Amino acid sequence: MTGLRIASPPWGTRALAADELVARARRLRLVLTDCDGVLTDGTVYVSEHGEAMKRFSLRDGMGVERLREAAIETAIVSRERSPIVARRVEKLRLRLHFEGVLDKAAELPRMLSAAGCGADAIAYIGDDVNDLGILEAVSRGGLTAAPFDALEPVAAAVHHVCRARGGEGAFREFAEWILCLRGAGKRDHDKGEAA
Amino acid sequence: MTGLRIASPPWGTRALAADELVARARRLRLVLTDCDGVLTDGTVYVSEHGEAMKRFSLRDGMGVERLREAAIETAIVSRERSPIVARRVEKLRLRLHFEGVLDKAAELPRMLSAAGCGADAIAYIGDDVNDLGILEAVSRGGLTAAPFDALEPVAAAVHHVCRARGGEGAFREFAEWILCLRGAGKRDHDKGEAA
Amino acid sequence: MTGLRIASPPWGTRALAADELVARARRLRLVLTDCDGVLTDGTVYVSEHGEAMKRFSLRDGMGVERLREAAIETAIVSRERSPIVARRVEKLRLRLHFEGVLDKAAELPRMLSAAGCGADAIAYIGDDVNDLGILEAVSRGGLTAAPFDALEPVAAAVHHVCRARGGEGAFREFAEWILCLRGAGKRDHDKGEAA
Amino acid sequence: MTGLRIASPPWGTRALAADELVARARRLRLVLTDCDGVLTDGTVYVSEHGEAMKRFSLRDGMGVERLREAAIETAIVSRERSPIVARRVEKLRLRLHFEGVLDKAAELPRMLSAAGCGADAIAYIGDDVNDLGILEAVSRGGLTAAPFDALEPVAAAVHHVCRARGGEGAFREFAEWILCLRGAGKRDHDKGEAA
Repeated sequence: MTGLRIASPPWGTRALAADELVARARRLRLVLTDCDGVLTDGTVYVSEHGEAMKRFSLRDGMGVERLREAAIETAIVSRERSPIVARRVEKLRLRLHFEGVLDKAAELPRMLSAAGCGADAIAYIGDDVNDLGILEAVSRGGLTAAPFDALEPVAAAVHHVCRARGGEGAFREFAEWILCLRGAGKRDHDKGEAA
Repeated sequence: MTGLRIASPPWGTRALAADELVARARRLRLVLTDCDGVLTDGTVYVSEHGEAMKRFSLRDGMGVERLREAAIETAIVSRERSPIVARRVEKLRLRLHFEGVLDKAAELPRMLSAAGCGADAIAYIGDDVNDLGILEAVSRGGLTAAPFDALEPVAAAVHHVCRARGGEGAFREFAEWILCLRGAGKRDHDKGEAA
Repeated sequence: MTGLRIASPPWGTRALAADELVARARRLRLVLTDCDGVLTDGTVYVSEHGEAMKRFSLRDGMGVERLREAAIETAIVSRERSPIVARRVEKLRLRLHFEGVLDKAAELPRMLSAAGCGADAIAYIGDDVNDLGILEAVSRGGLTAAPFDALEPVAAAVHHVCRARGGEGAFREFAEWILCLRGAGKRDHDKGEAA
Repeated sequence: MTGLRIASPPWGTRALAADELVARARRLRLVLTDCDGVLTDGTVYVSEHGEAMKRFSLRDGMGVERLREAAIETAIVSRERSPIVARRVEKLRLRLHFEGVLDKAAELPRMLSAAGCGADAIAYIGDDVNDLGILEAVSRGGLTAAPFDALEPVAAAVHHVCRARGGEGAFREFAEWILCLRGAGKRDHDKGEAA
């Protein structure tokens, strides 16, 4: 999670030159993340009263904070409406939570408008086939990722396939990857200025 | 989960020619699934008040939806009677839930009658030795599967052994496998018509 | 879980001739099992009110039933006193539950007396160093096992190291191993009578 | 967990001669442990009411007891304030719990003072980048460790990288490693006296 890794095994991923990755990382202002399967392992704990709990990683929470320190906002985009996720949003002190979003690609302009952010200043991480549309859209000017255990067509459509699974630090890994790319860019920039 | 895989490692499974698999997938109308060990990892969370929770995969839930879009119904068959499973059935909007079924093979005709479905239009996925009878019956004209971590005699008795474990997307993988086979058949059919 | 495996990788285990294993399995009347780390993965779910839940395998529950059909009783021996475990004991319809047992080896005679069972008709499965004493005692005339993820000195002290982890079917595997050994003995016996 | 392992794969760790490890282990009086990611797997179970549960290992609990028998105290240091962790502290009968500690290195002198313990008589186990400062400080005269799944810079900064993951016995493994080192020292000492 510390070294700069441009390409990610084991699946083929979208190819992008290292300096383009750095340029995209440096202009990032917003990371959009799917919830189920990314911030969780895609499971739900069901009691006799219905959906009772989901499991979140505190390491991902630290990823949100570390992005925030770099002036990058995090927002959750989810298909479902869940009071459980609302509690997590509060805990992470996220300003934006887009819930009940059935067609994420179609809603992207509205989400960007709410965030006050351009289409080339965003990143997206998702794991399932209903993320393919928004991944396609974000990939044009932003950065995309998928957890290690994402469905194969999703893993094949992103810039970075995480070594971590959903709910086990995939979001944190994406955050560190972005921060590492920005640092790489900055170091190059500093060198340039020093020269 | 995207490519067409006719045979599944690592255990030996029932052999069936590819065109027969496609034919069976194309006439499918109902997927029967065991609950514990298939839709869950076979565990239960026990509190001081008894069985409190089970853990389900939302990816499996999307599998149910994707089958529904292809006009294939999903029904749960379970040995136990559990209010937890009843909540999951509601959430997945399943019309049929057969609970307290001690002898699944013996009850198969009744279940087919309730579903209004012929014996060669069904599929079954199960993981334990009490599924062997119904797997034998369904295998004759339908399609069968087992999660990766099914007991060995069960894995040896099915057409498809999933790469996913129970509760971790095995049902979804079975659903995608079926949809992929149907698509393969359809493409061949289209080619035939175009020719 | 179906084939007869006399020795178990990957750790060295107590050596015993196959016919001795079969003889011991055939005279078994009672399987004693540790709870935490065997019937569970050794973890507890803690809420703001204290220990809230433990997670049990339904496959292990089927192991209890299958032993029962072979007239072999199962009893839980645990160091702690827990209302959660008491609920599991009820669900499994176990007649005997020895809780708060700090020195399992010292209490073995009392437990055998309560079960009405001789010292050479029992089996024991445990995972931690506080099981070493009772494993030593049971190993003399009975059968012993440990989950795959048992501590090393425990794995080195038993007849069978399971391929399954605690809480993920280790007890079921031990039960099937015993039933398989008994069947092997029975088949040999039948052959002898037929001849 | 039984043999004496001086170095730990797979990451490079701080090098220290075996006799120095033994000397440090022998003077230990206090083990400080991070909570999330060490005593747990770094996840939290969230309900509609917020953070509902964390999962702890009973094997780690036995590690606390085994250290206590060797007159070594255990204390938890955590960034968050959580009633869940407070329940675990009570259950483990820990005298000291430092919560809400944002800068662990800066607070180390205060913690040592509360424990009545010198800086060269302590050990620390942590998993995330906010543990790097205190790991650096403790490494000078004490012993340090990280769970197998610690972040890479943390794994690179400790004396012992556990084979166990956080929440799955990493703390127990650290405790056994310390006890093993002390025993090694003691055996050498005894030999010296016997000679």
